[in-house]
Amino acid sequence: MSVSNPSSPKYPAARNFAALLELFQPGMSALDEVLREQVAHFEPEVRDLAAYCLDSTGKRLRPLLVFMAGWNGRRSPELLLVRAAAVVEMTHLATLVHDDIMDHAKLRRGRATVSAKDGPAVAVLLGDALFAQSVWLSTQFPTTEVCRSVAVATRQVCTGEIVQTLGGPGAQPSRERYRRIIDLKTAELFHVSCRLGARLGGSPEGFVEAAGRFGRKLGIAYQIYDDLTDFASSAEAAGKTLGTDWASGKFTLPVLCLLERSQEAERERLLEQLRSGSLEAGVEIAALMAGAGVFRAVADEARTEIAAALAELADWPELPATELLRDLAAYLEGQLDSLLA
Amino acid sequence: MSVSNPSSPKYPAARNFAALLELFQPGMSALDEVLREQVAHFEPEVRDLAAYCLDSTGKRLRPLLVFMAGWNGRRSPELLLVRAAAVVEMTHLATLVHDDIMDHAKLRRGRATVSAKDGPAVAVLLGDALFAQSVWLSTQFPTTEVCRSVAVATRQVCTGEIVQTLGGPGAQPSRERYRRIIDLKTAELFHVSCRLGARLGGSPEGFVEAAGRFGRKLGIAYQIYDDLTDFASSAEAAGKTLGTDWASGKFTLPVLCLLERSQEAERERLLEQLRSGSLEAGVEIAALMAGAGVFRAVADEARTEIAAALAELADWPELPATELLRDLAAYLEGQLDSLLA
Repeated sequence: MSVSNPSSPKYPAARNFAALLELFQPGMSALDEVLREQVAHFEPEVRDLAAYCLDSTGKRLRPLLVFMAGWNGRRSPELLLVRAAAVVEMTHLATLVHDDIMDHAKLRRGRATVSAKDGPAVAVLLGDALFAQSVWLSTQFPTTEVCRSVAVATRQVCTGEIVQTLGGPGAQPSRERYRRIIDLKTAELFHVSCRLGARLGGSPEGFVEAAGRFGRKLGIAYQIYDDLTDFASSAEAAGKTLGTDWASGKFTLPVLCLLERSQEAERERLLEQLRSGSLEAGVEIAALMAGAGVFRAVADEARTEIAAALAELADWPELPATELLRDLAAYLEGQLDSLLA
Repeated sequence: MSVSNPSSPKYPAARNFAALLELFQPGMSALDEVLREQVAHFEPEVRDLAAYCLDSTGKRLRPLLVFMAGWNGRRSPELLLVRAAAVVEMTHLATLVHDDIMDHAKLRRGRATVSAKDGPAVAVLLGDALFAQSVWLSTQFPTTEVCRSVAVATRQVCTGEIVQTLGGPGAQPSRERYRRIIDLKTAELFHVSCRLGARLGGSPEGFVEAAGRFGRKLGIAYQIYDDLTDFASSAEAAGKTLGTDWASGKFTLPVLCLLERSQEAERERLLEQLRSGSLEAGVEIAALMAGAGVFRAVADEARTEIAAALAELADWPELPATELLRDLAAYLEGQLDSLLA
């Protein structure tokens, strides 16, 4: 979710989002500091490599979820939340280092990937070391809960990627499979981020679980949005290699939707193009999607998930965290509108 | 360290080792059970893959260290020790899955590697998932100590591999560098295995630290022995692809030793051969090593480390664990003798 254009007049939520980001500026600065501190824990030989990965200009969505779900009205960042935010962000960054190997991605957020810069072997090992350090950080809590949650989420993220990889260009696409993949690879860590935030923020158990369910559904919506972005916006806007999912023959929802709307004969040709993974084919497919109303249909599915996420918070209207999470959901809705504008 | 030929009459320690293995048979069976249980924790889509990796016919050296250092005279396996043994073994197995990608290894212990069988992408992700599950298991202890130790060890193992990889065929070999690499990639997890075993076995703090130092030095000795095996025995005997270290241009101690004993002109040719990584060159180098007395010199360095490891236990002669660890060290000495016989 891009944080550019925060003052768009079209979506009131976007204005709120700018205020949200401002609210968590102290937390994000503290997060930067914790991530910088982690670099010193690495052995001297790999500190530059670790710093390269941790000095991320990323969106820090998962830390934002931790902060929002853990919000209790105090402005100064609380150490437990900052640390939990650092754990989920480092875990996420570690998985990105490995994802970029699989996807043969050269760029991420405008910078060379570790895989492109130092080779896939170093990228495998550095991703491992980053994950190990995020585990270490998670052991700095008094109990094993943070570590346990993040371990399960990491296993699921990797499993989601395996299911996607094993499918490959030859596998039969299905909605169930797509849903399962994005639940594992994205929604679980969103779930953990919200649940840990709410827990460490001292919320009642009922809200902790509700926030977790909100996170899972928002994660599904976000991944659908992200997959839509591959086709509905340019490489520059997405800030990453255009269509790495496409190039790897991954069936994302826009592709599934287009296949569903195509005649038998067209479908064969589309599958062929998907298997080719060529950029030209991707551009052609994007045009077909636009013509067939795929973008709008996919955006509607994301909106359905956002509504379901919001419903999870219905019993907790009085909590400060609820308002923030609602604003975030509204912002994602606004981003979906922007994509289709 | 192969456990075959346990009844060799030449090395009394080998007879003790057979008795040792028998002593820990219940523990190893309980370990198998815990590892099998872990498979069920994986998501259904990857259980077969996880089972393939966890159903290892490996040497289980690290579990053995946990059991030995934690030995307090009771024969029935204690759950805490078995669980710690499972954590270190799973962590080790996860790193092997990734090592086999880097080394382009086709076989490990006579079975296809995950990288060869399912491709490097799946191997990266499955290694991650295995590591995540070992972290999960480490959170089943009441405190975060096991998890923390294993996180640090994992970071170091990966760092050791990075240092080795970044060196590559072009780097200047040096003893300091070799020493640093094997300390990180092997000795640290040996250290953690011994320290955790002693701690969970309820030993006094002084012994816990002494056992850790013993483990580190034994780990150095073991890695030197393992590197020696690449050249001093055949692929079949080592049970893995012959000379993957050699093929990747890694400077191990036997290579360093041969370079030190060579004239300037020969050295250039040797470095060339190392860079080529060809099997023929490796066989030729092994012959040169035999002629130049390299095997004996390298074995002597391993023996020096074993003696230093044993010295760490000198203050704790009365503990049952001390006797076992001494037997293990003696067994490794016997294995070194066998290699040169």
